[in-house]
Amino acid sequence: MRNIKIILAYDGTDYCGWQSQKNGVTIQETLEKALSKILKEKIRIKSAGRTDSGVHAAGQAANFKTKSQMGLPRIKKALNSNLPSDICVCGINEVPLSFDAQKNAKSKIYRYTIYLGEKPFPFDNKFVLWLPYKLDLTAMRSSARILTGIKDFASFTGAKNSTLTTIRKIKSIKILKKGKYLHIDIEGEGFLYNMARVIAGALIEVSRGKISTDLLRKILLVKARQSYIPTAPAKALMLMRVKY
Amino acid sequence: MRNIKIILAYDGTDYCGWQSQKNGVTIQETLEKALSKILKEKIRIKSAGRTDSGVHAAGQAANFKTKSQMGLPRIKKALNSNLPSDICVCGINEVPLSFDAQKNAKSKIYRYTIYLGEKPFPFDNKFVLWLPYKLDLTAMRSSARILTGIKDFASFTGAKNSTLTTIRKIKSIKILKKGKYLHIDIEGEGFLYNMARVIAGALIEVSRGKISTDLLRKILLVKARQSYIPTAPAKALMLMRVKY
Repeated sequence: MRNIKIILAYDGTDYCGWQSQKNGVTIQETLEKALSKILKEKIRIKSAGRTDSGVHAAGQAANFKTKSQMGLPRIKKALNSNLPSDICVCGINEVPLSFDAQKNAKSKIYRYTIYLGEKPFPFDNKFVLWLPYKLDLTAMRSSARILTGIKDFASFTGAKNSTLTTIRKIKSIKILKKGKYLHIDIEGEGFLYNMARVIAGALIEVSRGKISTDLLRKILLVKARQSYIPTAPAKALMLMRVKY
Repeated sequence: MRNIKIILAYDGTDYCGWQSQKNGVTIQETLEKALSKILKEKIRIKSAGRTDSGVHAAGQAANFKTKSQMGLPRIKKALNSNLPSDICVCGINEVPLSFDAQKNAKSKIYRYTIYLGEKPFPFDNKFVLWLPYKLDLTAMRSSARILTGIKDFASFTGAKNSTLTTIRKIKSIKILKKGKYLHIDIEGEGFLYNMARVIAGALIEVSRGKISTDLLRKILLVKARQSYIPTAPAKALMLMRVKY
């Protein structure tokens, strides 16, 4: 038996997220079908992060086990040929049998991208949230600091969250402005359901003056989702990298 | 009467090119509809270059005349709101009544983008031609020099070309390699129907060793399209800039 790790990029627009489900096509299912066909055995694949419906990845990590002795470059090439054009295998390597893409991940970096100009460029329109407003980046950065560290993120998850604990460690939240683009880079050891999008939604509300940094601090302590904190749209979120 | 010049970016994937026609939606028609609605009079718009079906633009230039006294920022904003997300107005200014976006253009720069890696990234897949081959860039550059200058480009146009003369001036053809991306930047005073795509197609054939630089020189002299020179796919061509 071999354990193989792959690095993936995908445009999540047309997928119902990573995880296999009854309604709609998922990234996991698309990969498992291609892998099972190429390796001629039933393959199950596990990713570092189960991205939501419509969320993209530039550096998702996943692993699968196989009895096949096929060489890695050949598996990679066959996968890229068999997968649709919106999923790409960027890297492949063999890992110890004990490696688990989800459990061994030290941290994941998600990027939320906001376009501040008059209208997004047609070429990246699918991957940005258009906010043609004056945003208060100082307030955004103060709020980002409040959400950094080991905290109970119960107020920053979707109703569907089903984890045992809502305590997570956010290592850093960086607010980077590059021309008309604003990136919110969130590095965390783990993320609850919708958590990256709710954090982005909260920071956007702060930057627009809809809620104060003080209120955000209170919301964190309340440990219950507040209806006035929106889940930011999925299309502008990208899983950039998984660290091991 | 005022004459207004606009700079446009568009994803040409879903359009039958610039010029209005009976079958299928065009960029020109989409713009004229939006302009006529905003300015409450019938507007006709003329562009520097009539891009082919499926070709994109990052810096197309166009002009239209109007009796309206609406301010430029307001026209730009209204246009961007009324146009679909795959067309964006990046710039607007008022020009002398005599200005004609097509006739006054000194040169146009088209970029053809080839992706040389194992599989294009899902995020720019729509805008590149995937050629996972070893390309001979030295031969490509030699051939580019042959096609530079004032030449009769009769061998480098589509059958539908209807201009009086097939003589055109190509100011420069630059072959730029950036990582896995290869750009063919063609600056010309004017382009025949399909010309940028046929030049790209010819250079690709040379770089793959399918035709020699010597044969390309002969093809230019023959002044008739040769069936073994393909028209490179539209999706990887972008009108980058129009110089005045």
